[in-house]
Amino acid sequence: MIERTRFQPPEPPAGVVGGIEALCRQVRGDVIRMTTLAGSGHPGGSMSSTEIFALLWSQAAVDPENPRMKGRDRILVSHGHTSPAVYSVLGRLGFFDAGEAVRTFRLAGSPFEGHIERTVPGVELTTGNLGQGLSGACGFAIADRLAGFSNRIFVVMGDGEQQKGQIVEARRFAKAFGLSSITVVVDMNGLQISGRTADVMPVDLEAEYSSDGWEVIRVDGHDIPALYRALRPSGNPAGPRVVLAETVMGKGVSFMENDPQFHGRALTRAEAGRALAELGIPDDLDELAEARRAGRPAGRTFHSPCSGGAVLDNVGNPRTYPPDHKGDNRSAFGLALTDLASVNSDRVPLVFDCDLAASVKTEAFAKAYPSHFIQSGIMEHHTASAAGAASLADRVVFWADFGVFAVDETFNQHRLNDINMTNLKVVATHCGLDVGPDGKTHHCIKYLALMGSLRNCSVIVPADPNQTDRAVRFAAANPGNYFIAMGRSKTPVITGPDGTPLFGEGYRFVYGAHDLLKPGKDAVLVTMGSMCHRALEAAAILERRGIALEVISACCPVSLSPALLDRIRGFPLAVSYEDHDRETGLGSRIAVALSAERGAPPLLRLGVDGYGLSGDPEALYEMQGLLPEQVADTIEKRLGRLTSS
Amino acid sequence: MIERTRFQPPEPPAGVVGGIEALCRQVRGDVIRMTTLAGSGHPGGSMSSTEIFALLWSQAAVDPENPRMKGRDRILVSHGHTSPAVYSVLGRLGFFDAGEAVRTFRLAGSPFEGHIERTVPGVELTTGNLGQGLSGACGFAIADRLAGFSNRIFVVMGDGEQQKGQIVEARRFAKAFGLSSITVVVDMNGLQISGRTADVMPVDLEAEYSSDGWEVIRVDGHDIPALYRALRPSGNPAGPRVVLAETVMGKGVSFMENDPQFHGRALTRAEAGRALAELGIPDDLDELAEARRAGRPAGRTFHSPCSGGAVLDNVGNPRTYPPDHKGDNRSAFGLALTDLASVNSDRVPLVFDCDLAASVKTEAFAKAYPSHFIQSGIMEHHTASAAGAASLADRVVFWADFGVFAVDETFNQHRLNDINMTNLKVVATHCGLDVGPDGKTHHCIKYLALMGSLRNCSVIVPADPNQTDRAVRFAAANPGNYFIAMGRSKTPVITGPDGTPLFGEGYRFVYGAHDLLKPGKDAVLVTMGSMCHRALEAAAILERRGIALEVISACCPVSLSPALLDRIRGFPLAVSYEDHDRETGLGSRIAVALSAERGAPPLLRLGVDGYGLSGDPEALYEMQGLLPEQVADTIEKRLGRLTSS
Repeated sequence: MIERTRFQPPEPPAGVVGGIEALCRQVRGDVIRMTTLAGSGHPGGSMSSTEIFALLWSQAAVDPENPRMKGRDRILVSHGHTSPAVYSVLGRLGFFDAGEAVRTFRLAGSPFEGHIERTVPGVELTTGNLGQGLSGACGFAIADRLAGFSNRIFVVMGDGEQQKGQIVEARRFAKAFGLSSITVVVDMNGLQISGRTADVMPVDLEAEYSSDGWEVIRVDGHDIPALYRALRPSGNPAGPRVVLAETVMGKGVSFMENDPQFHGRALTRAEAGRALAELGIPDDLDELAEARRAGRPAGRTFHSPCSGGAVLDNVGNPRTYPPDHKGDNRSAFGLALTDLASVNSDRVPLVFDCDLAASVKTEAFAKAYPSHFIQSGIMEHHTASAAGAASLADRVVFWADFGVFAVDETFNQHRLNDINMTNLKVVATHCGLDVGPDGKTHHCIKYLALMGSLRNCSVIVPADPNQTDRAVRFAAANPGNYFIAMGRSKTPVITGPDGTPLFGEGYRFVYGAHDLLKPGKDAVLVTMGSMCHRALEAAAILERRGIALEVISACCPVSLSPALLDRIRGFPLAVSYEDHDRETGLGSRIAVALSAERGAPPLLRLGVDGYGLSGDPEALYEMQGLLPEQVADTIEKRLGRLTSS
Repeated sequence: MIERTRFQPPEPPAGVVGGIEALCRQVRGDVIRMTTLAGSGHPGGSMSSTEIFALLWSQAAVDPENPRMKGRDRILVSHGHTSPAVYSVLGRLGFFDAGEAVRTFRLAGSPFEGHIERTVPGVELTTGNLGQGLSGACGFAIADRLAGFSNRIFVVMGDGEQQKGQIVEARRFAKAFGLSSITVVVDMNGLQISGRTADVMPVDLEAEYSSDGWEVIRVDGHDIPALYRALRPSGNPAGPRVVLAETVMGKGVSFMENDPQFHGRALTRAEAGRALAELGIPDDLDELAEARRAGRPAGRTFHSPCSGGAVLDNVGNPRTYPPDHKGDNRSAFGLALTDLASVNSDRVPLVFDCDLAASVKTEAFAKAYPSHFIQSGIMEHHTASAAGAASLADRVVFWADFGVFAVDETFNQHRLNDINMTNLKVVATHCGLDVGPDGKTHHCIKYLALMGSLRNCSVIVPADPNQTDRAVRFAAANPGNYFIAMGRSKTPVITGPDGTPLFGEGYRFVYGAHDLLKPGKDAVLVTMGSMCHRALEAAAILERRGIALEVISACCPVSLSPALLDRIRGFPLAVSYEDHDRETGLGSRIAVALSAERGAPPLLRLGVDGYGLSGDPEALYEMQGLLPEQVADTIEKRLGRLTSS
């Protein structure tokens, strides 16, 4: 047992230093054994980061018995490929059985994956794609500060990954928000896969972090007392701190030291034997290999990381916009958001913005709840990651942005969030050709291809302001990632047969359900979002021509229900109609869902072909054949061909 | 006519200063008229950048009569929303008719789109999503230097967009490669949409650029002689230079100056009248509005930006790997690449790398052609943009990377490349669960959803080393963007009925064609890439059970041919089989392509469900039911259900 000091004594007690030294030797042995057993992995960086990991997890305010303890210090590892050392340190400090980690590292079914995973006790965030860890730390720091914790957030990063621009974004954010709870330790082993970092792509870290207003400390990353002092809290911190820890890749095994090949290569059996001998660790690799061969791990043994996604139990009273209301869905979102905050004054959601509050309609929230409004500048990569991490800290979190920034620019950040099973509500307000004259660089028309491909993300494309209001409240009341897409323009209120709002008083949003906007028998048109009212116009035109078009809104386009598919199968012709790339949107989802059985009706897919230009949305729709009159013509012609054939 | 000095005289001739002053007044009038006519756009930044644009396009080595002149200076505008000023300056300097730009700005069908477009003469690169312009400049600078040009590359950027991390990546790259041809001008108007940049997200630009080794000059951005001097070439440049140009948003119209609302708001008719009066410009808005209403522009009037994509006419002799060859597709790519270089010694391709040359097999190329190998560090966003721009400079350009970095991390950069109709060959070497123990953060299983959604990008997933070799040569010999995906593992050589390589001597790669790997009659399985040989194994298993499975490789999965679709329609059951997310991959493409007509066979989609874990690829395939034996069982069972029903 190493005494846990929480970095309070000015110097580490002698027992602590000795304990950590002994631990580090064992950890290096584990790293060698794990990677050689697995036949792959990253021993070099694991061994340069060993003292840093051992010191942090043994001394910080964390509890192996209760790894999710409230108000704990958080330790993030951004260079997730150092998983062998992370798992070994955690296992040997009692977070779980280190032996299992050694035996099953990188074995299919084992929780001890190649890059660190949040399913493992002690790991705060799954990482692996470089450059996202500091952003995650910023998200945690913001959320924890609002929760009133005075905890510290430690982030260990590689020096190679400092080349990533997202880290600079995170650095600025941490300074701008005075996140003095954050201490970064950069493992400065000076090497990356292709050689010396100074040769591959020079970065003057001291100058850069200083420029960004950080406190910079240089230290020998293998000198435990020196590292300990660098990690002690400042009395009166001016902001975040970076500890540039000079280390040696492959530290502890003579023939590995400073050799970049060991960044990503496991030792051979023979090399591993020599390495273990040098470390004074018994060589049990053959027994371990046999145990590993004996059987695949039964599967996940740890808790699901999804558990505990924060939700709001009270979502207030939905607003009902009357039939003559002239508004856009984004304004309905903005009002629902302030409603949610006002009825949850003790649990106000966090709202992230990237310099677009006025357009995405979070301005009213920002004015009313400035401490919960996080202005993140034009730094979308950072924001996507930070907001994702914050959503893991017992807080409902929204990020609203234009579609192309909320989706196209940040897909890989969302993918990591998805893998982390975060709890983020992304609201994309400027989707489709509806954005109009800003042109193709600003037309978000591939959001279903991207966000729809994420397995732990629910997608909602509401039909009008009323459904938007209810969808936003629903997302806040349910755990997990939500993506809510809408256009920019005013959208008429959809009404039912009795002329009252269809998504009004009697309506309750259910994820995955579809909405029958108008019954018909000659063909069924499935649409979503701001095309719903246009679809109804097309149906009215066809009605006058004696054709009864059924119109259905599939507001959850990646979760088409069996009931909807059954209904579609009953028609002689199906039509999809969307303000989205027609190859990868709602139409493609319907085609795929119907393809398992023979006998689906022919599907006419109406959507954006290629890129739209810059101009009034109505003109752009016309160029794409998407105006109601054109849609009616196309359907009529297709039905004619069907009956004549 | 303003005399074009190419920045040679130490001071700008008096006539030049006077001419530019007069031009700037006209430009500001145009900006007001264009945005008010369009009812949208960005007048504020256009007016702060006016002197910068006017000076650059009037003085740099560009030719309005020949905008694509070889060896010209290149002027890039990264904050593409300043399009009104860009178009006005270009039009008034003779690149095209300024009147048309004023009249049709942001009108559907006009080439004068909301964000600057490369179709417009004088515009080097379409921009609009912030932060990518400097990366583009780096790509041009690298390519132009290799071509032997001593031209200069100017990049005008906003100060708000300096928050984007990609700019820092580009800054480091420019310094590392000594790109002293680059001069950046930052329009420091101090405002962004949400207010003062210093409040929204502070960035100390002088300190940051200095940290990164740039020469920094501060200047008044409306003082033409001072700006001129700052833009003059250095005698002995140490590296790239940034000119921090202090400007005033909305400059020239008193009530617009320093008001952030005019970043993105057009003036009303009344405001525009006042502004024009203040500028001393006749108010012809009513006539212009009428002319604008009179008719939509006929469509594109300028050349296609795609013309002139560089290709290699000589692709050498394909390599044929014999049936007993044990190799991976990425090695075949690497060898094809060096072959291409060796037979084109005067036109060696450019190859970009992000610290993975050994893994993506560009190391041999790097050793043989160090000047054409561009080590870009762990800076994928920058690299995707820089490589895209370089591919517009009469050079065949490859970028090889792991799938998750080449695709997931950089989608929006590829989207901008796609809009720019670049000529980039992206080779993703580590796709699918085939990457194995690196785990889900490193499994690129959504590449068809992403790259397949780009309209100007051809996608190839070759079946074996022989087809890889030919696909790489094909991509080099054809203009446009190509995405070539492959796994990490060794892939057996596919053979024909006679036991010789199917993609060997007699084979020629044709884009969009499918390959019949084995004929059959009971069901057809369509697959791609490294699953081809597994599909053949499954077919052999079924053969022994009396079931004749046809196996087809669809190596161009986003361009399925009518012939393939017809063939599929003739079977009682179709199966898709892929190392890709099964919801958005080859199976979904087939389902969509078949959906237009009734009567397609039921489609059984076999692919990755959710995320794979970390482990040996074979174990991961087994967990997903994708091993040949499992596939055979599933198909047999499904066929049984079909016949019994």
